[in-house]
Formats: sequence, structure tokens, C-alpha cells
Amino acid sequence: MQIIHADIVYSEDREHLAVHPDSYIAVEKEKVKGIWPVLPEEYKSAPLTDYGDGVLIPALSDLHVHAPQYLNRGLEMDLLLADWLDQCTFPMEAKYADPEFAKLAYDAFVDDMIANGTMHACVYGTIHSEATSYLIERMDQKGIKGFVGKINMDRSAPDDLREDPDESIRETEIFLEKYSKNRNTRPILTPRFAPTCTRELINGLGKLGRKYNAAMQTHLVESLWEAEQARLLFPECSCDTEIYERAGLMENGPVIGGHFIFPSEDDIRIMKKYDCYAVHCPDATISVIAGIMKTGTLLDRGLKIGLGSDISAGHHIGVYTQAARAVQLSKLKQFYEPDDNRKITFPEAFWMATKQSGKLFGGTGSLEPGAVFDALVIDGLSDAARKLTPEQVVERFCYIGTKENIKARYMNGEVLFG
Amino acid sequence: MQIIHADIVYSEDREHLAVHPDSYIAVEKEKVKGIWPVLPEEYKSAPLTDYGDGVLIPALSDLHVHAPQYLNRGLEMDLLLADWLDQCTFPMEAKYADPEFAKLAYDAFVDDMIANGTMHACVYGTIHSEATSYLIERMDQKGIKGFVGKINMDRSAPDDLREDPDESIRETEIFLEKYSKNRNTRPILTPRFAPTCTRELINGLGKLGRKYNAAMQTHLVESLWEAEQARLLFPECSCDTEIYERAGLMENGPVIGGHFIFPSEDDIRIMKKYDCYAVHCPDATISVIAGIMKTGTLLDRGLKIGLGSDISAGHHIGVYTQAARAVQLSKLKQFYEPDDNRKITFPEAFWMATKQSGKLFGGTGSLEPGAVFDALVIDGLSDAARKLTPEQVVERFCYIGTKENIKARYMNGEVLFG
Repeated sequence: MQIIHADIVYSEDREHLAVHPDSYIAVEKEKVKGIWPVLPEEYKSAPLTDYGDGVLIPALSDLHVHAPQYLNRGLEMDLLLADWLDQCTFPMEAKYADPEFAKLAYDAFVDDMIANGTMHACVYGTIHSEATSYLIERMDQKGIKGFVGKINMDRSAPDDLREDPDESIRETEIFLEKYSKNRNTRPILTPRFAPTCTRELINGLGKLGRKYNAAMQTHLVESLWEAEQARLLFPECSCDTEIYERAGLMENGPVIGGHFIFPSEDDIRIMKKYDCYAVHCPDATISVIAGIMKTGTLLDRGLKIGLGSDISAGHHIGVYTQAARAVQLSKLKQFYEPDDNRKITFPEAFWMATKQSGKLFGGTGSLEPGAVFDALVIDGLSDAARKLTPEQVVERFCYIGTKENIKARYMNGEVLFG
Repeated sequence: MQIIHADIVYSEDREHLAVHPDSYIAVEKEKVKGIWPVLPEEYKSAPLTDYGDGVLIPALSDLHVHAPQYLNRGLEMDLLLADWLDQCTFPMEAKYADPEFAKLAYDAFVDDMIANGTMHACVYGTIHSEATSYLIERMDQKGIKGFVGKINMDRSAPDDLREDPDESIRETEIFLEKYSKNRNTRPILTPRFAPTCTRELINGLGKLGRKYNAAMQTHLVESLWEAEQARLLFPECSCDTEIYERAGLMENGPVIGGHFIFPSEDDIRIMKKYDCYAVHCPDATISVIAGIMKTGTLLDRGLKIGLGSDISAGHHIGVYTQAARAVQLSKLKQFYEPDDNRKITFPEAFWMATKQSGKLFGGTGSLEPGAVFDALVIDGLSDAARKLTPEQVVERFCYIGTKENIKARYMNGEVLFG
């Protein structure tokens, strides 16, 4: 049992923050026991850590991030999707054929993710088994809850990134077998997206999905170009999402669909049917994709939505920045397409980045009693001329904070050092 | 004479960066003498500062920023313009009736601006003479080149921020007289915007403009609401900009028009006729205003455009972040209004934030020979697995850099400490 004193903020529900100023939280083993304004007598002998005016919030979840593109973040951002893939992204991913290069890059990626408060993540690797194995081992060892996928693609990719479908399935099965028992970071099926996968490959992954009860992540209707390609290449399907449904990929572990910017009614119906998560990646949306998810509308229709940094279409690895950007973009969407969206609120954006996504990772993303205590302490955001309220600290952190404002990090109830 | 060794990057012209890797720059008094890959014999006895892999860039210009709103940055960002003014901005500005409060807030504002590399700025104060006098004195003393305006407004504002027009003119003239001879930071006429100014007030400012040959800043067609208000309240004018033209406010010092998101052909014609600057404030645009400047189109038509942080409609005081955001938003504008815009490039955005705006402040914003040496050294952005080129460092700095990446600051050829 340990006690922490701080201002405490988490999502009560989609629309409201729970705010406990100047309060005590008790953590027993890895779970929250309770929160009180005055510490109950029975806990007075437990060790106490006092963060003063620091604000305790749940750790963040990044539901869509490409680890191998970490080295490209904030570079070549003048390009749009197709050019950006060809000129910037695929050449970088090809370098992960070299395990030594991958090791150096992935170590930096994992460290920076944790430094920025992300402790739960759905991560894309490359097609390379050795490099992706290093990544999942590293994340598991660091305690990050989530998923890593070896990417599958067998067409419309450069020669050095295009797989033979049989070999792709074989390598993926080895990856699933080897890491399915991981404690923290587990394997996830990762057909990159419709334009780079044949029906043969996707059906093969469907068999693996059923055999291993595996989760699946892919890019869904992320651009008009991609949605059109999906229809052209899979004419038997009414929509992009149906490509995966037909292969039986939606019926196993959790399904996470990146972007979901141009969904048809069929896309939405299938996603809801299987209780899938769509991922809003605001910065990526305005940098290489162009288009904005109708987040407000989809939330109101009951779709599950989380946030993603989408490194390196998105440039910032901190999911907190994407909570702010999600609010901003919802206003633009409302301005340009008033019939198809409403603006979202900051509490909604924060909820997507924490409590809503945390359900994917074993009951974390909140600080309510019973939640697994993955948490951050935020500080240094008030001014000499203005002391902020706890909820103001959280909003300002998402708008202008940096990893320097994260003064402490807890994972499974234990403080992280270094 | 002093010599600095670094990678050197500045805008050659609107479309191109000049890049001098591993080079020497000579600075004589406050001006750049030249740049060489090998230090000429004649300069070898001059004192040398070596920044190694650091990248030397021009200091940044912020053409639209509200100093009193600094304490609101990153807060109450769920609101849109009219509500945001009433509930968030006006109540904060009213506090600057208290000079002691203003002093504390403005000290923090000026320090943070310099910390983030802004050395040239067009700044809005409040209606309060004493607080605004402190602000201009503080900026002048710190060496910031630019302008500070006492805001004028005599209608449609809360009681404690609404002036009598005669008193507003009288106080403004005292402000102009007192600070017109300042070395660095000079006064600028600042009618807030059409909805809060009567014709009587604007005409009075016009007389002051001619008498003191004063610069002028205001908000121009920043929202559909504001453009409509301008037409309703000044039915004799064909457009928002004509309100100021008719008062003779465009004929004196420089004119800086904030936002310029919904200009008519008349607005554009008048702005070009008087060689005015429009200011693109991307984050403000997507947070409280909604709408995107057609930056590409206006640049191609020869309008002068700079960038503004627009604290606190914009949340980040670093203009470098707005260079990145300007590129992002130009893509969205192209997506939603393909006939009315093209996407801009990173070199164009950087040029707006440096060389193009620097012309307003006495020949700075560049590192070419003859330029006044206001400069920053950027570092700490490469990865162990990837050393960036100098231009990549600059792009990444604008996308994910922080003030911590600014390792040194030069103003008029002298390094700043602390």
C-alpha cells in the first residue's frame, strides 16, 4: 500500500472530468484503492509521496503509431500521402532489414514514448521479423501494455518491402507463436492496408486470427485515394472494412482501425458490430492525409474512438498533443461540414486518450477505485501571476506542455526512474 | 568583429532555403559581414564561438500577439470567438487596470517570447495606459524590435473595457508622444476591430496617424461574423479594410492586419495598394476562429504575409510552431477549397516567419551579408540512429522543437545570457 498526495484529475465519463484537488490516493499493489480529501486514519502509516501542486492524471494510450518511422518525425512534411509513402516512409522502413539499425532506432522510440507519458500502445513494425521481434521484446521488457504487429504487404510496395504471401503468413505465425504469452506487449495481425495486401494474404491472416484468437490493426478509409483503391482491388466488398470482416479478422481479439476518415455506412456498421476501435490521428490527418474524422458524430453514434500519434505522418509522439489537436480539428470539421459533425470538448478528447482507450489494456486509463495505476504527475504549467486549477493544468498541458512537464511516471503502481 | 561556426540556414528567397553546412559567419558590430566554408585568413584573429553541429537561423518575428492574454494560453480552448471574447478574453484584459498585476504578467510574457526565439513583434496591449506603458518600456529595454499598441474600443465591449472615444484618443496621443522616439519598441495605433470601434474613434485615430506618421494594427476579416459586423456597422464601406483606409490610417507607418481569412477583392486591393502585411495565425484560426487563410493564393498574388502566435486564441508563443502549422493548414485548405488555395511549402512558411517579416524591423530576419544579426542556435534534434541535415534540423524544430532546443540567442550581434 502506498499513498500519493496531489491534485487528481481523470475522466468521470465521456463528457466530464473528475477533479479531486489537494487529495490523497491509495494504491494497493498495482490498483487504485480510493481517493480522499483527508487521509483516512487507517492509511496514515503507509508510505506517502507528496507532489504538492502537481496534477496526477492517468497515463496515455497511443492507438496508432509506426515505430520504424520514428526517425522521420517532423521531416519531409510537405508531402501528401502517396508521395510521402514512396519518397519518405518506404525507404526508411526498408532500413529495418538491418537489425543493428533497428535496435538503435527502437530503443530511442520506446524511451521517447515513455518519456512522453504513453504506457499503452498499438504499434506497427515493418515486414522484418527480426527487427519487429526486437521491438516487441523491448516494449514488453519496459512494461508497455499493448500490441506490436509485423506488417504484411505483398503488392504495391517497393521490391525490398514486398513479401511473398506464403512467406508473410509463415513469418507472422512464428511471430504470433513466439510472443502470444507475453506479459505486457502482445502480437497483433497487421495487414498494412488494402492497397498493399492481396485477398490471398488477408485470408491467410484470417486463418491465423482464428487459430491464435489474435487482435488486428490496419488503416481504414484513411484517404479518398485509399477508400477508392479498396473498392477497386476488392470489388466483392461493399466497403474497406468488409475486406477484413470477410476474412474473419474481426471476430477474434480487439480490432483497431486507424484514421477512419471517410467511412461509408457499411464501414460504420461493421465496426460497431464487432465493437472495434477507430483511431483519430489529428496531426497525421492534416499533414499527409487531408481530411478530418467526424469524431463528434461517430462518438454520438456509439463508435469507440481512441487517439493516435501516427508517427511519422503525425510529428509528435506525445498523445497529449493530439487531445488538443482533436478539439481544434473538430471545430474546422464543423466549419467546413456543419451537417456532418459537431465540435468535441476537451473532456471528450482527454477521455479518448485515457479512459476509453485504457479499456483495451486491462482496465487502466482511469484513477477510479479498481483501475490499474498507470499514471503521470504533471507540473510547471502555472504562472507567477496565475495559479491554475487542476483541470486547467491538464488542458494547458495538452496544448503547450512537453515531456519536461511530466515530473513522475507510474506503471502498475510503481514509479519509473530515469 | 566576431566569428561564429555552425551550420547556417536562412531564407534565400520565398521558395528556397540557403544552407551553409559547417561554415563560418562573420558579424561586424550588429551586422552580418559574410559566410564562408573556410575562414578567410584576415578573420583568423577574431574571437570565434563554435556551436559544432548547432544550426544558426534568423530570430523569429511574431506579427500578431496579445500580451495580456498570455496568462490564458492553452485554456478554455473549447470556445469559439464570440463566447471566447466574452467569457475568457475580456475578463482577463479587465485585470490589467491593476498595474501590479500587469507588471508580473508582462515580465513573464516578454521573457517567454525571447526564450522562444521571438525578437521582433507586433503586440496588442489593453485599453489601459499605465499597463501598456509598462509593456512597451519593458520590451524596449529588452531590445525587442517592434510595436506595442494601446487598444482602442468604444462599443460592444464590457463596461470596464469600453472607452469614451475622446478619452481614448487623448490617452493614445500621450502614448504616441511618449514612446515615438524609442530605440527598439515603438507605439502603434490599435483599434481592436470593427465591431468594437465607432467611426468617430477610428477617424480620431486617423488624425493621430497622420500627425505622428504612426503604424497601425487591427484584426481584418478574421471571421464570417466579424466581416458581417463590419458591413453592418460601416455600411458606407465596401469592405472591412476600407473602414481604416477612409480614416487615413493606411498611409502612414506600416499596417499589419491580423488573420485576413475572409477577404473580398476590395480588401485585397486596398492591402496591396498600401503594401500592408496580413498575418496568418494558424492555431488561432483553428481554435477560436474557424476558417483558414488562403495563404498560397495570397502569396502568389503578391500580398505580404507574416506569421503570428496570436496568444491566446493561438496557444503557443513560439512562432516556429506556427510555421509548421501553416504548412499543415494549407493542405486542409486545399482539400476543402481546391479552387481557392494551393498548399504552401516549409521554405515558404519559414520565409514568412523570418525574412519576409524581418523587413518590418530594420533589415533583419536573414543571415545574408548586411542583415542585422538577430539569430538563434538550434540543437538537440538529431537521433543517435540518424544525423539530420541542417535544413532537416530546422524543419523538425518547427514541428516538434521547444525552447529547450534553442541553445543560444543573439540580438544585434550580441549574445543574450540567462
